[in-house]
Amino acid sequence: MFPLDRTSTVALADQIESRLRGLVESGQLPSGARLTSIRALATQLGVSPNTVVTAYDRLVALGLVDSRGTAGFFVRESSAPEPVQALLVAGEEHDAVWLVQQAHEVRASMLPASSGALPPSWLEDAIPAAVVQRGLARSAGGMAARCPPQGVPELRERIAMLMRSQGIATDASRVLTCFGGTHAIDLICRAFLRPGDAVLVETPGYHLLFDRLRDAGVRIVPIARRHDGVDLEQLEAACIEHRPRLFFIQSVLHNPTGWGSTAANLHRVLLLAERHNVLLAEDDVHGHFHAGAVTRLAQLSELRGVIYYSSFCKALSPALRMGYIAAEPDLLKQLLRAKIHSVLTTAALNEHVLLELLATGRFRKHLDRLQQKLAAARAVASRELRRVGVLLDRPAEGGLFMWGALPTGVDIDLLIKDAYRHGILLAGGAFAADGVGDQHLRFNVVFAQHPRLAEFLAPRLAGTAPSGHRSLRLAASRDL
Amino acid sequence: MFPLDRTSTVALADQIESRLRGLVESGQLPSGARLTSIRALATQLGVSPNTVVTAYDRLVALGLVDSRGTAGFFVRESSAPEPVQALLVAGEEHDAVWLVQQAHEVRASMLPASSGALPPSWLEDAIPAAVVQRGLARSAGGMAARCPPQGVPELRERIAMLMRSQGIATDASRVLTCFGGTHAIDLICRAFLRPGDAVLVETPGYHLLFDRLRDAGVRIVPIARRHDGVDLEQLEAACIEHRPRLFFIQSVLHNPTGWGSTAANLHRVLLLAERHNVLLAEDDVHGHFHAGAVTRLAQLSELRGVIYYSSFCKALSPALRMGYIAAEPDLLKQLLRAKIHSVLTTAALNEHVLLELLATGRFRKHLDRLQQKLAAARAVASRELRRVGVLLDRPAEGGLFMWGALPTGVDIDLLIKDAYRHGILLAGGAFAADGVGDQHLRFNVVFAQHPRLAEFLAPRLAGTAPSGHRSLRLAASRDL
Repeated sequence: MFPLDRTSTVALADQIESRLRGLVESGQLPSGARLTSIRALATQLGVSPNTVVTAYDRLVALGLVDSRGTAGFFVRESSAPEPVQALLVAGEEHDAVWLVQQAHEVRASMLPASSGALPPSWLEDAIPAAVVQRGLARSAGGMAARCPPQGVPELRERIAMLMRSQGIATDASRVLTCFGGTHAIDLICRAFLRPGDAVLVETPGYHLLFDRLRDAGVRIVPIARRHDGVDLEQLEAACIEHRPRLFFIQSVLHNPTGWGSTAANLHRVLLLAERHNVLLAEDDVHGHFHAGAVTRLAQLSELRGVIYYSSFCKALSPALRMGYIAAEPDLLKQLLRAKIHSVLTTAALNEHVLLELLATGRFRKHLDRLQQKLAAARAVASRELRRVGVLLDRPAEGGLFMWGALPTGVDIDLLIKDAYRHGILLAGGAFAADGVGDQHLRFNVVFAQHPRLAEFLAPRLAGTAPSGHRSLRLAASRDL
Repeated sequence: MFPLDRTSTVALADQIESRLRGLVESGQLPSGARLTSIRALATQLGVSPNTVVTAYDRLVALGLVDSRGTAGFFVRESSAPEPVQALLVAGEEHDAVWLVQQAHEVRASMLPASSGALPPSWLEDAIPAAVVQRGLARSAGGMAARCPPQGVPELRERIAMLMRSQGIATDASRVLTCFGGTHAIDLICRAFLRPGDAVLVETPGYHLLFDRLRDAGVRIVPIARRHDGVDLEQLEAACIEHRPRLFFIQSVLHNPTGWGSTAANLHRVLLLAERHNVLLAEDDVHGHFHAGAVTRLAQLSELRGVIYYSSFCKALSPALRMGYIAAEPDLLKQLLRAKIHSVLTTAALNEHVLLELLATGRFRKHLDRLQQKLAAARAVASRELRRVGVLLDRPAEGGLFMWGALPTGVDIDLLIKDAYRHGILLAGGAFAADGVGDQHLRFNVVFAQHPRLAEFLAPRLAGTAPSGHRSLRLAASRDL
């Protein structure tokens, strides 16, 4: 019926579920069609019947399939998922806000191959219900408690401890909580930017940052991101020409490339920023994915002239929406005022749950496990993508992403649209600061392992990739 | 030792705790001083020893008092509360952001007599821990779930049902969740206002709204608030003169006056807004405090030309920070884009807890209880404030607030500063749109019952109030 990849870290039940979803969604298994019986499919695929049961049960839970007792499993009559009563912001494949909506309100059958998030199953055990309960019990007022606008003091102290463990000298008075990395960016824009200001960004970079900056009416000046950090010559020239107010920079596991910065590169960035009076906003929302020691601007500078921000949304829990900013008091006061103007305060429930988690040491263990799983997923995904002809010229240092180029000759815009029609969400040009993409796509290392992606890409990249890959590609396309 | 008010709805233990805090804070009970024994104080005050135990235990929990076993209770050596490692935004008594910080990071001994919130003890039972747990269990991904940017569909449906029960025709597709009323205001400003736009506001009105609008660089045009709604002549004149883009208006339990709007007044507001092409932003964050049926702009207009917003922070749980906006799809799309730019999404944990609460019908019962308690508190607070010479010319219709004037001859700015030194937070001028206050103060009906407020005000208003109050005032001042 279809091949399973037994070398993948994707569970077999996940693979079966994903394949069947694709067949239902694409209409290859039409409404009312009976699925192969559990026993027969298990025999065909060489897996245990329990594995098939797991996959079928999930399809039932998704509303794609009905169980009719002994008669078997049938594709639900109206197999198209119910339209969610949600508004879609107008936009197209390169639009950052549209992409965010796609990633969050995605049809269950969509494979978000360029997603900026881990699949929920990877974070399921990160915050058990008991931790939520103990966190709530920590708060003197429980659900009646108001949160101090700067954040719960004990939580800010725990966050400061976490930062000190990363080598960054700080304390609780220099920490401000917020609703995640996007909120941190928003507060920085509000506090420090006025229309017409010049702002430096890395390109490629975070698409919602570019969108937010356009909204602020500032002049966006892109600086190329290299394998060892930002391009220092471009940075110096831009400082002289544009007299920028601020530079948004990701030192660790840069989004979308997954590359890091060398300590030497960061040292030079700090010198240039100080010489040209440019405030640095260091985005570390992917930093928790980094295994081992790494140098950050916040560490080298001891926060002088650097606003540092990170988030627990990526590696711990998107359901909490907690992030944090650290800066010198003069800067932090302006950010605190901006926070009060934007949301008044964060939520005491969320702060106490996070406090409970940080206080118990669970976070560190959770990160260790995640980093190992990500490394395994990255190995499989790179192998698969290379096999079908994606060019991964420089491997990522870790984290969620790989930055891969399609062979010249492939029309990337057409391919992205084609992928969307096939239930695969891909994005590339959205990460270019000037909105003009090249041949690169961002791949999420977890979702990019799924066989559906390789199957989609293989025939479309065939004949365009370096010849050494041909035999593998042919082998792959025979499976279709 | 001190008199208790047995007619007050403030529990006796609360009164004892509050008095003792005041004595410790003011230094009248110095460091190291031994408190009267439990038995002796109970006898003096004519209360049960358990009541005194409750009060003393809270003082211990606050860190103001130490229990030394059989030796008794002693004022802690360093009785000044530990300085919280929090930054105070520079500001003064009229500054909105300063007031917010004071209200949220207030010293435990401070009496927030002008507070915009209920005391935590009034909301303690609103969301039991079991509801949090069941809410979390509702979410398919648990703490790993991402929240759709528009909000969880089932929650939006519940909110639409709540609105329909208030007579407002709407559905889930017209609802957007957000992090409370301040966030709603922020999103509306971002989506619809540009620097230089004229914006109408009620005066007096919500101080953080004025601050947010100043931040947006718009021209603020104040319209006087009357007992039956906004001044319609001023409104028409302002529409003609300033061609405003937007009008922020509170129809129900207006903050800070507590007054409502008649249906006739709202009808005229809608006609004027339509004629002059002014978008209406209807602030209903205090609407849940209103008992019984009441007319809103959103109902009369069926949301045509009206953006409606409300919040669960005031009447249900500040720890959740959940609010909602309802509008026609064209307007809501712009607000959704603004939400994605500001916080990406709200938090799945908070949305599912709220969903659980709304789905079980607990919210309605909780509101019924609150409304009864508020009515009782309002009766006591009005009596006490009138007794000491505060002029309450028009009673509030319900809700948290009363709007009271000090007699002419009292310097209100000096009185507010004096109150702060005495551990009482009062605010008045902050609610004037032009920043120039008159003799009015906003009183929170719960905190304004506390005997400390009457004791502070009585001697300071003595001799200035209408003569009919004199004998009562003299009686009151003898207690000091």
